Amino acid sequence: MIRRKRVFEILERGMPGDTLSIVVDYGIILIIVLNIVAVIISSFNDLPVLLTRGLSIFEYLSIGIFTLEYGLRLWTAPYKYPSRRFPYLRYILSFMALIDLCAILPFYLPFIVGVDLRVLRILRLFRLLRILKLNRYNNAVELIAQVFKGEKEKILTTVFMTGVMLLLAASVMYYVENAAQPDKFPNIIATLWWAVATLTTVGYGDVYPITHIGKVLSGLIAILGIGLVALPAGIISSGFIKAISKEEQARQEAVPKTSSPGAKQVCPHCGKEIE
Amino acid sequence: MIRRKRVFEILERGMPGDTLSIVVDYGIILIIVLNIVAVIISSFNDLPVLLTRGLSIFEYLSIGIFTLEYGLRLWTAPYKYPSRRFPYLRYILSFMALIDLCAILPFYLPFIVGVDLRVLRILRLFRLLRILKLNRYNNAVELIAQVFKGEKEKILTTVFMTGVMLLLAASVMYYVENAAQPDKFPNIIATLWWAVATLTTVGYGDVYPITHIGKVLSGLIAILGIGLVALPAGIISSGFIKAISKEEQARQEAVPKTSSPGAKQVCPHCGKEIE
Amino acid sequence: MIRRKRVFEILERGMPGDTLSIVVDYGIILIIVLNIVAVIISSFNDLPVLLTRGLSIFEYLSIGIFTLEYGLRLWTAPYKYPSRRFPYLRYILSFMALIDLCAILPFYLPFIVGVDLRVLRILRLFRLLRILKLNRYNNAVELIAQVFKGEKEKILTTVFMTGVMLLLAASVMYYVENAAQPDKFPNIIATLWWAVATLTTVGYGDVYPITHIGKVLSGLIAILGIGLVALPAGIISSGFIKAISKEEQARQEAVPKTSSPGAKQVCPHCGKEIE
Amino acid sequence: MIRRKRVFEILERGMPGDTLSIVVDYGIILIIVLNIVAVIISSFNDLPVLLTRGLSIFEYLSIGIFTLEYGLRLWTAPYKYPSRRFPYLRYILSFMALIDLCAILPFYLPFIVGVDLRVLRILRLFRLLRILKLNRYNNAVELIAQVFKGEKEKILTTVFMTGVMLLLAASVMYYVENAAQPDKFPNIIATLWWAVATLTTVGYGDVYPITHIGKVLSGLIAILGIGLVALPAGIISSGFIKAISKEEQARQEAVPKTSSPGAKQVCPHCGKEIE
Repeated sequence: MIRRKRVFEILERGMPGDTLSIVVDYGIILIIVLNIVAVIISSFNDLPVLLTRGLSIFEYLSIGIFTLEYGLRLWTAPYKYPSRRFPYLRYILSFMALIDLCAILPFYLPFIVGVDLRVLRILRLFRLLRILKLNRYNNAVELIAQVFKGEKEKILTTVFMTGVMLLLAASVMYYVENAAQPDKFPNIIATLWWAVATLTTVGYGDVYPITHIGKVLSGLIAILGIGLVALPAGIISSGFIKAISKEEQARQEAVPKTSSPGAKQVCPHCGKEIE
Repeated sequence: MIRRKRVFEILERGMPGDTLSIVVDYGIILIIVLNIVAVIISSFNDLPVLLTRGLSIFEYLSIGIFTLEYGLRLWTAPYKYPSRRFPYLRYILSFMALIDLCAILPFYLPFIVGVDLRVLRILRLFRLLRILKLNRYNNAVELIAQVFKGEKEKILTTVFMTGVMLLLAASVMYYVENAAQPDKFPNIIATLWWAVATLTTVGYGDVYPITHIGKVLSGLIAILGIGLVALPAGIISSGFIKAISKEEQARQEAVPKTSSPGAKQVCPHCGKEIE
Repeated sequence: MIRRKRVFEILERGMPGDTLSIVVDYGIILIIVLNIVAVIISSFNDLPVLLTRGLSIFEYLSIGIFTLEYGLRLWTAPYKYPSRRFPYLRYILSFMALIDLCAILPFYLPFIVGVDLRVLRILRLFRLLRILKLNRYNNAVELIAQVFKGEKEKILTTVFMTGVMLLLAASVMYYVENAAQPDKFPNIIATLWWAVATLTTVGYGDVYPITHIGKVLSGLIAILGIGLVALPAGIISSGFIKAISKEEQARQEAVPKTSSPGAKQVCPHCGKEIE
Repeated sequence: MIRRKRVFEILERGMPGDTLSIVVDYGIILIIVLNIVAVIISSFNDLPVLLTRGLSIFEYLSIGIFTLEYGLRLWTAPYKYPSRRFPYLRYILSFMALIDLCAILPFYLPFIVGVDLRVLRILRLFRLLRILKLNRYNNAVELIAQVFKGEKEKILTTVFMTGVMLLLAASVMYYVENAAQPDKFPNIIATLWWAVATLTTVGYGDVYPITHIGKVLSGLIAILGIGLVALPAGIISSGFIKAISKEEQARQEAVPKTSSPGAKQVCPHCGKEIE
């Protein structure tokens, strides 16, 4: 069983000195980036036949590599979740594995069911999500993800409140502007387009009120939009500060008890434990 | 009087295990969401007669349910405010009850007075505010509301300062641009539309200065607009951090020493307790 | 000299119970608000002659009152700055007194020198600044002003960095877009209009790049614009938190030393001292 | 060797009383500002011949002065980095020295290689970066730079996530809108222009979706754009607060106990000291 452990080590982030593992890490990143370039290139019109064929071959190749990677990661799942039950299922349902599956599954789908080509095209875009794999190699991502997870409830409430505000604004605006501009504010759903453009302060300029009441309402929504930016900024700020003070506390508590066995100290610079 | 208490329990957020109460909670949410869908659908043109009739029946039904709910909540008010005086009046004047009343009152109004149909239409929109009832089932809303309440003074000052800034910008811009674009900057009130669009950085593009001084002024206002976003963001950030540190302090103080009874000091100016 | 002290008390924020002082406070606020309304109304075209005459009389009246107020405040300056030297000069050079002077001075100027009517019109706008007097009656304004004062250096640096960024962006964009759109990007100064609209994310839509390099550059500037919002938000956040923690510290230090004479305690709710 | 030390003192920020050093500091700032003015003026069309010649002479002069300054700073580098090895190389590779080199190098380049005049023009713009030299005279800049350096990892992650979001949004939008507006959404790269304008909430209004799915997607991206502003705001906020609390801690620890010599612990992983 030594081999399976070695495969796991190679797939995980390479430890310094483990050249093969590091090469595999960067190799996978390279293929992901090349895949994105291929998606972008294939969106251009009038590509030469040779390039189209090359992109097609590259696609087959990279799908093969990603399928192999997915299989190996599944095979080595017991090493990823050593002390828990159902490691294979746990891996399949993890966020990163689901993205990986989305990136390779649309390729195999047409062989199974006869899907519309246009739908497949959109599904193929999930390939771009492979780039999130790059984040697996980053510590800051985890901290940001942790802050978002910790503030999840507040963020969802903000999103919900935004939705309510958008609906209310669109409903009132529909009654106010419908008579003056029936083509731009035909119903509440269409008016949501104006509401989003105003509340987020994008303001494309294709739809805007022309009546006096409509302008007053639009101004109020735009000012509320500022509060909408301020609220998540405040939530995320406090989330980061919470995370920092927790770290700080952990460090302060770690100092007096250094003599007790099992109290591992963490370097504030690199975040690794000091044995 | 056991029955009235049971009705109160059912109307309040359902405790785990109290199936009936939970079913009632989700049932009311469902009716609210369906009502919003009905408002949205009825804003479309050329609806089939059958659908219009269906929406009308659904409206009668849901108004009936909401009236019943309002009545029962009023009836069980003494259980909501057990130790205070005037529980019925207290309920009627609570924020949530006023929203509930606004949602059902416009339906009964035309039976009392002959109101213009268009005004009634706008009043009917308050029905959308029913969705705020959903928030009653959410803890994060209360924290956010608490932060806004705690920072109320600062937020109002920011709003006031924004108003002053808007007025000043509009007044100066009127004198600067009026000669060049008399149709877009006809008076100070109309110029406020430009001021709001610029300060909130929405920038629809329907009104913008064309003179040199006007452009300089517009640029300054836009840069001030950034400060305008930063100020509430800072206020709300500090509000959340205050709330967190209070929580933290309460937890730390709870462990080592319990406060002696009667030790609380009262401010002679405002009569509130000093922690 | 008792009378001069009484006049000072009346002009300052009225203490509870001092009816005359409170009436004077609100009376002045009312006249300021009415003045702003008058400025707004007089910006409309085709006003009836009677209204124009009324506004003119009201202007004479309010200028009279404000001149009297200014004079009295100057007369009672020794009570405002009791222990300092040159109280009269100190008052004249204070921020609020300068605004007050700007509000009344343009009225007396044409009697002294023959000024162009259009310049006078713009000068008259400083009347709007009188509204800032309202803030004199607000505690939160002082906290916000204190935070801005405390973070002055950082804010000025941000403003300076913004200026540099704008200049750099405009200069590069001029060289990039000048050939393609010579009418919209004629020189660096004119290109600053695009730079401000993009960096502040206003985006009116009257000027935008059409070349490929110009679009890339514009995208980079817009993304930098996000950082530009984030930086002052962070500065002001930390400023508020600093102010809060100072307060917190002051309160904590105030508790153990309550027995010592002269250690005045402040109520955290209303901010007043407890004797 | 006393002279070289004196030259170093003069070039560094002048100490109070050292008149010559202060004069040199402000003289260099003046030349930098005049250079920027010259760049701006030379971007205007139809300048009189005399002015063009004057600007040219001024350019030769200031390049001479800046070259001299660069040479003297290089010469006095051993005083800037007294205890470290390779002081000259260290100076050449420092951020400020690289900017200084970029400001003077393009002037000497045409004498060496035959470069296209248009490329040279763009290179000449680096002259504007000289203004960053002004920051050398500012304390707040260093704090801001420190915060950005401390939060570098998180900021880069945010930038990276923004890039991924832009790519994903542009890719999906291309497939959604390409059929309806082939001229505005011709390929994924061109669609990035829409993605940037929406995510940063600039919204010029030259490109926006017209299909229903496209509008929904655009709305979602605009709302995500709000989160994009909130995230760096939170990161920078926490960075400033970290910097403040460190300062605070340092002050508090400085008073009661001085650290014993040699008590500093070093992390075995990264070799940095642990405070």
